[in-house]
This record gives sequence, C-alpha cells and structure tokens, in this order.
Amino acid sequence: MIYFDNSATTKPYKEVLEAFNKVSAEYFGNPSSLHGLGGMAEKLLLQAREQMAKLLKVQSNEIYFTSGGTESNNIAIKGTALMYRNRGRHIITTKIEHPSIKESMEQLRSLGFQITYIPVDDRGIVSVSEIEKAITDETILVSVMHVNNETGSVQPIKEIGQLLKRYSKVLFHVDHVQGIGKVPLHFYESNIDLCTISGHKFHGLKGTGALFIRHGVKISPLFSGGGQEWNQRSGTENVAGMVAMAKALRLTLLRQDTGLAELIIIKDFLRKELEKIEGVQIYTPATQSSPHIINFSIRGFKAEVFVHALEERNIFVSTTSACASKTRKASSVLLAMGVPEDEAMSSIRLSLSFENTLDEAKQFIASVKEAVLKLREVMN
Amino acid sequence: MIYFDNSATTKPYKEVLEAFNKVSAEYFGNPSSLHGLGGMAEKLLLQAREQMAKLLKVQSNEIYFTSGGTESNNIAIKGTALMYRNRGRHIITTKIEHPSIKESMEQLRSLGFQITYIPVDDRGIVSVSEIEKAITDETILVSVMHVNNETGSVQPIKEIGQLLKRYSKVLFHVDHVQGIGKVPLHFYESNIDLCTISGHKFHGLKGTGALFIRHGVKISPLFSGGGQEWNQRSGTENVAGMVAMAKALRLTLLRQDTGLAELIIIKDFLRKELEKIEGVQIYTPATQSSPHIINFSIRGFKAEVFVHALEERNIFVSTTSACASKTRKASSVLLAMGVPEDEAMSSIRLSLSFENTLDEAKQFIASVKEAVLKLREVMN
Ligand SMILES: Cc1ncc(COP(=O)(O)O)c(C=O)c1O
Ligand SMILES: Cc1ncc(COP(=O)(O)O)c(C=O)c1O
Repeated sequence: MIYFDNSATTKPYKEVLEAFNKVSAEYFGNPSSLHGLGGMAEKLLLQAREQMAKLLKVQSNEIYFTSGGTESNNIAIKGTALMYRNRGRHIITTKIEHPSIKESMEQLRSLGFQITYIPVDDRGIVSVSEIEKAITDETILVSVMHVNNETGSVQPIKEIGQLLKRYSKVLFHVDHVQGIGKVPLHFYESNIDLCTISGHKFHGLKGTGALFIRHGVKISPLFSGGGQEWNQRSGTENVAGMVAMAKALRLTLLRQDTGLAELIIIKDFLRKELEKIEGVQIYTPATQSSPHIINFSIRGFKAEVFVHALEERNIFVSTTSACASKTRKASSVLLAMGVPEDEAMSSIRLSLSFENTLDEAKQFIASVKEAVLKLREVMN
Repeated sequence: MIYFDNSATTKPYKEVLEAFNKVSAEYFGNPSSLHGLGGMAEKLLLQAREQMAKLLKVQSNEIYFTSGGTESNNIAIKGTALMYRNRGRHIITTKIEHPSIKESMEQLRSLGFQITYIPVDDRGIVSVSEIEKAITDETILVSVMHVNNETGSVQPIKEIGQLLKRYSKVLFHVDHVQGIGKVPLHFYESNIDLCTISGHKFHGLKGTGALFIRHGVKISPLFSGGGQEWNQRSGTENVAGMVAMAKALRLTLLRQDTGLAELIIIKDFLRKELEKIEGVQIYTPATQSSPHIINFSIRGFKAEVFVHALEERNIFVSTTSACASKTRKASSVLLAMGVPEDEAMSSIRLSLSFENTLDEAKQFIASVKEAVLKLREVMN
C-alpha cells in the first residue's frame, strides 16, 4: 500500500499507540481526583504538556489540550469573538482557510460580526499589505493558516505577525495543523497569540489536539464546567491521548531533519515527473510551499475517476480536503487562486509524511502513466 | 487495590482497549476520505453508531459523537440557547447539576439569558410541580440530570418529560452521565430531546462521549467546520474511540442484570454497616437513588484526611465530584439538600461499578472502622 493522503490523516506510530495503552490501562485515574491514582494521571498530563511546550518552544502553561484541530480553531475564533465583542466586531481571515475557520466565521457573521476574507494570488498566497489595508478600529482578530491543506502554499506568517505588532488590539491566530513538523514556525518570533495543532496529522491519535494561547491572552471558553485547562476547556482530560500526542510530536520532530531532506527529494522528483505527463497542471507553487503536498490535475479526467484508478493499484490519494471530498464541488482554494472550475474539478492532492519513500514516488509515477494511458484508451 | 471512585472515572475494559488499538492501527483512514481506507473507517463509525443506538433504543441518526460528557452538555445547553434565542431567553435547571451544566448556564446568563435554578428536597430530589411553576412564555429549555454524581439521587425524569409534553416550545435535556447502565432510562418514553452520555464513566475511554438529539430537533453547533455528525459537530471523527465506546456500552449493558443485582446487595451491606459506625451520617437517600453511589460523612473528620487514611489501606474513594475535589469548598449539592456546611466538608463519596465485589465492601468497612479508631485515638 502506498499512502499519499497524510493531510487527511496519518497512521499512528506504534510507540504512540503503546503509550496510549499503557496510560489507559495503568494510569486510568481522573487527574482531578484527590487520591494517588488521580495524582499519577495528573502528573502524566503535566509531563505531556511540558514535553509539548518544550518541543514547540513555548511555556507549558500556554498549551491547552483539546479534541483536535477543529475544536482548537473553533475555540480560538469564537472564544476571541465572545471575549472581545464589546471591543469590536471585525475579523480578518483569508479565502483559503480550512472549513473549521470558514464556517466559524460564517456563524459569527450571522451573529453580527463583520468578516473580511483576504484573497490570494495565483500561487495561493495572501499579501501582507492587503491584510494591513483591511484592519479597522473594529478589528479584534486576524486568522491566517500557516500551510494550506490543499496546495501546501505557505503563508507569510512571520511578516503578518510583525505587522500586527503595531496593532495591539488585534489578536493573531494561526492554523498550524498542516505546517507542524513540515515547515518550521516559531510562535513567539511570529508574534502569534493563538495557534492550532491536531494530533492525528503527525501520527498521533484522532480526537487529540492543542491550542497554544500566549501567556496573558484571555478568551471565553466553549466548554464550561469543572475548570480543567485553566478554565479554558473543561472536561475530564484525555490523559492517554495527550501523552500519545506528545510522543507523536517528539518522534516527528526527532525525524524532522532527515525527514524533510528526504521529502524535498521526493517532492522534486514527483514534480518533475508529473510535469512530463501530457495535460498535467501543477497548482502547488514551486517556492513557498510545504515539502509534503503536491496538488495537480490531469486534463480530461475527473478527480474521482483518477482516485479510484490509483486505488486499484493500491495507491491512496485524495481530491481536495477530506471533509470536502464528498461534496463534489470544485475546491474553493483552487477557485480562489483563479483556477477555472472544470480544471479545479480534476485536482488531485498528494500528501506525504516521513514514512513515505522515493521508491513509492517512483511506483506512483509509473502507475499514473499507466492509468492515464488506460483511461485515455477507454475514453477514445 | 479497591477502587470505589467509578463516578470520577472507570478503568477501561480490556476488550475496549483492544478494539481501540485494532481500529487505530488497521483502520486509520479519515472517514471523510473518498478512497477505500476512508470507506472502511466510515463503515466502522456507522457500525458504532448503530450499535449505540440499538443499545439505547433510539435511531442511529439520533446519536452524535462527541469528546465527552462536558462537551455534550455544553453543546446541548449552548446550542439550544443559540438556536432559539429569538424564541425566548429563559432556561430552567436544578441546583444540583454538574459544573458543565451550571457553568454553561452562568455563561449564558452573562449573555442575557435568565436562569431558574430549582431547589431540591433533603433527599436531593427536585419536584416536578416546582419545574412547572417556573415555566414561562420565554422558556426554551429544561435541563435536569438523571442521577446526581455526588449522592446518587435519581430525579423524576419520566414525570418531567410527561409535564413538558404540554409545552411544545420547551426542549428537555437530560444529563445521563451517571445513570447509564445503572438506572434504566428510556429516552423516548421520557420525552427527552437531548441526552448526554460519557464513555469513560462506563469503562470506555476518556475523550469519548455522545449526545442524543431527538430526530427533528435542531441546535446550533459549537464546532463549525467540515460538516461531520450532520453538521452538528465538525471535526475528524475519533473512530477508534467511538468503536471503543460502543463496545464498552455493550459490555456494560450485557452485565446489567446480574451487575445491578450484585450492586444492590453491596450497597445495602455498605449502608447497614456504615450506619452502625458512630457519627456516620448518610446523605444518599434510601430510595430513589442509584445502586452505585453512597455519600456519607463521619462526624469530626475532614473528608480529605479520611480519603488519605483509606488510600494508605489501598482503597480509593473521593470527596465530592472529581473536578471540584481540589477547591476545598463544601459540596454545593449537599448544601442544596440542607446539609450544614461543616458536615458537608466531611462528606465521602463511594462510587461502584460492576467490577466491584461484596468482598471489597467488607474490606472497606473493616478499614473504615480501623481508620476511625486510629484517627480518634490521634485526635484525643
Ligand atoms: C488546515 C487544517 N485545519 C484544521 C483541520 C481540522 O483538524 P481536525 O481534523 O483535527 O479536526 C485540518 C484537517 O482536517 C486542516 O487540514
Ligand atoms: C453528572 C455528570 N455530568 C457530566 C460529567 C462530565 O463528563 P466528562 O467527564 O466526560 O467531561 C460528569 C463527570 O465528570 C458527571 O458526573
């Protein structure tokens, strides 16, 4: 099996599952309980938090555990809006955000907020000056993703952060779900206030995520209750899941240097080989893109047909983002980049992880060529 | 080890962890992905949903998966408030709800909603007529827990449901987290619109839960995004966790008949033996209480001291609810029942599961007697 759909989800590392098991079976206490079983669970949770913080180069009281990227994004956006609604009701974001951002914005719009969606250029990248132009006295939040989940385009987070330093009333949220482990990002240097990550995108488990909330920043909780996570996210903590996520992050970052070097080789290879195939159009920009995503289309083939043709060859790729893949609509990210609708309907996303190899890429290219030939035969 | 803190959290069943592992390792696809790996994950999720629905005697499209009881409660309360805020802004609940209800209510209050907290009698039980009296034209929701997590008192859910049938504008939410598997509850017969359960309270995993939303009832989502769970709860689904929860529920309900019979014997034994000890006051009502919880105090001992004395004997019990146990405040549930504050500060909660035995109860009583003697000696 060749699994090239790592932006949808990754296979958990064996060690990650082992850690989950050990904690679930042996340290099953509720971290809030007064007794020693609770104390042990609490200690493990603290260790996971400290490990995550160290790996992300932030303080441990800035890591809030959540159930995933969608939750972290929703908390960041709605929590900020609820907290600062009397300060202003204008939020700035981009046209290429993940649905968990876009739909949160639309919900806020229905509640009276004003949302500005900044366009992207034909490489799928926003301009810092367009963001600056959009800022008003009413602006309370700017939310920009780091790495786009469909094209891999990398946004100028550091520059936006520098810009926002001059606007002390405006919080800066970054959706780092696709960037983590792939494109380095220093939260403090980029002046980030809120940053989202999701465990299952780096070989952790589904149902685990985190939100970085910079020290001193306050937001309103979406989950009220027992006061866990410094009152920002109540609910009995998924201790085993968080220990597993910390382990997944450690293992991912341990492999980062060699992993990224290898990914760059694989991506260059894929890019060059795909370009040689007739009718191929690549949407992922040649520069300012993450080493793990390539998005392209082959003229004349609906994406779905191609996904299934590859699956017959035991290769797993996707059309757009996983959650949008069943809507059969053209990717809004590609449309925002100016790709014509019929072309966008043909787009395929390859997304890699450190588990993939150059050999797999070679097999993939051979399979694509074979599938194209065969499909063209059928169609003529 | 004698673990009598099952209302805080339970030890996951071995089979539950095995199911989690198998799904995580072998069926790790994203259920939204178009390809076969996604399809397999989607199928497992559907099976888990169907199994849960069958066990709860509802339809499978009425089961919404969440990350736990706190999330389900928050979604139910805030989602209803957000959805129907133009219909009315009055909500009725009780004085003995879990913090995830109480704090959600308080957040809504700060947003302009009016909250009525119905008192309880000295057994910790609300009166249906008091609820009826509180209903106004503005009322959109009544939220009452089934089994109280501190005392085990069982609320008259069916009667409240019957009452609310006459008020078609008013939704009925029930926090069934402590009741499930212990005190039977038929959602339809009780006219329930929204019902919360939490996986880790019945030997499932932390970070898993569900909300029953009756067919035809609409609420606003707290998590916007990719549209999972019929748009009510976006986010990549924790497939393995939900399969594990369905398994935990099946195993729990399979053991229900013999398990409950055994629990009743154990509880009767504990009750009788505790009553014989000088200075013991039992707060759990003799009737209308769940077979798995007994709450009591021993005059003259702070609860914490006693928890630790028992822990030295390898017995794990708790003071109040886990999440409130570190605040060192008297239990608000006991205060609502009219228990004097100093007595309430001494209260101990035993909470059992089908894993506990009469032998453990005997050991527990022996240890209590021994600890009381020893502590009284020290104090004199
Ligand atoms: C950029 C981006 N943000 C957010 C998410 C949502 O994360 P999760 O799947 O953990 O809900 C995803 C993945 O689907 C994503 O790719
Ligand atoms: C009655 C009740 N409701 C809700 C909850 C919250 O559930 P969870 O621990 O899954 O967040 C609990 C447990 O803490 C509870 O006892």
